[in-house]
Amino acid sequence: MTTNRLEQQMAFVLEVDRLKNVERQTLIVDGSRRENSAEHSWHIALMALLLAEHADHPDQMDLLKVVKMLLVHDIIEIDAGDVFAYHEDAEREEREEKAARRLFGLLPREQGEELYQLWREFEERKTPEARYAASMDRLLPLAQNYLTGGYTWVKYKIPEEKVRKRTQVISDSSQALWKYAESIIDEARKKGYFEK
Amino acid sequence: MTTNRLEQQMAFVLEVDRLKNVERQTLIVDGSRRENSAEHSWHIALMALLLAEHADHPDQMDLLKVVKMLLVHDIIEIDAGDVFAYHEDAEREEREEKAARRLFGLLPREQGEELYQLWREFEERKTPEARYAASMDRLLPLAQNYLTGGYTWVKYKIPEEKVRKRTQVISDSSQALWKYAESIIDEARKKGYFEK
Repeated sequence: MTTNRLEQQMAFVLEVDRLKNVERQTLIVDGSRRENSAEHSWHIALMALLLAEHADHPDQMDLLKVVKMLLVHDIIEIDAGDVFAYHEDAEREEREEKAARRLFGLLPREQGEELYQLWREFEERKTPEARYAASMDRLLPLAQNYLTGGYTWVKYKIPEEKVRKRTQVISDSSQALWKYAESIIDEARKKGYFEK
Repeated sequence: MTTNRLEQQMAFVLEVDRLKNVERQTLIVDGSRRENSAEHSWHIALMALLLAEHADHPDQMDLLKVVKMLLVHDIIEIDAGDVFAYHEDAEREEREEKAARRLFGLLPREQGEELYQLWREFEERKTPEARYAASMDRLLPLAQNYLTGGYTWVKYKIPEEKVRKRTQVISDSSQALWKYAESIIDEARKKGYFEK
């Protein structure tokens, strides 16, 4: 029984290796290449541990849950692909749901269900953990884009207003981090990174 | 004061982006390229969450501590480089200590100290969390090597006995996972991946 569970779990662990091949639009900070979703997940999980004190209500958060959520949040991209932040896509939801069912379905039932629920919770942004996790997922790419000459904003001609709207999710979780994000957006505007 | 702390924290977060450029010897599972230490850290942190039940004494472990440890354990490689598992290196300890001081030193004092201690704890493998974390760091590369035709074992002509010795660390934390690891080593021997 243990062996069977372990084999299912390892099948999942080895399958999600493929997240290392899912490329995001964002560049890594030195600008040398696009970031993949696995290393991105590492980065924001680590960041979440370090910045928790800046959440408006840090005591309301279960930090282990936040980290789990962030380690899991992009796994569905293995089947569904990374969707660029400013791209509209009607079939996205259906594709991601199907991906979640297949991938988390590799695990023993109750464990797959836990990860599926964590992913849904992240997407819905209704709990303190999900809001804070989402703020990490917005703040780090903002800083990365700023540090790489506004790379994706320039490439896809994104106006400031769209970046601000997308990033404002941060303010649902932390006024301090939102203030910090706004200062980056202000600097980016001064440097001419946004479409006018 | 908050701003100052946040700026220090973000300086660290953005500096550790460089872990994405530290290449390990191991290939990713599809064999297409070498793995980097950032995506490796994501992978074993996620794995640790899923396999905790197989530790000999799961109740003795603080899982958040395990995950923190794994997210942090390779950061020193940014300055000190990745050391191949079967390579002897007399100056390694000194180089890693210096790297830890500089990198964790970017953070606010008490937070840098916490990460430094987590890294030391991981290296010393004396606590249940550190032993379990180390077992993840041994088991996943074993499976990856097996699935890529014994890549690093063949390339560097590693005998079975060395792989077994290195992997046996797993048995300090989990008999179930050690048994699983041994079955991989047995299969790898049958396939002729080890130096005779």
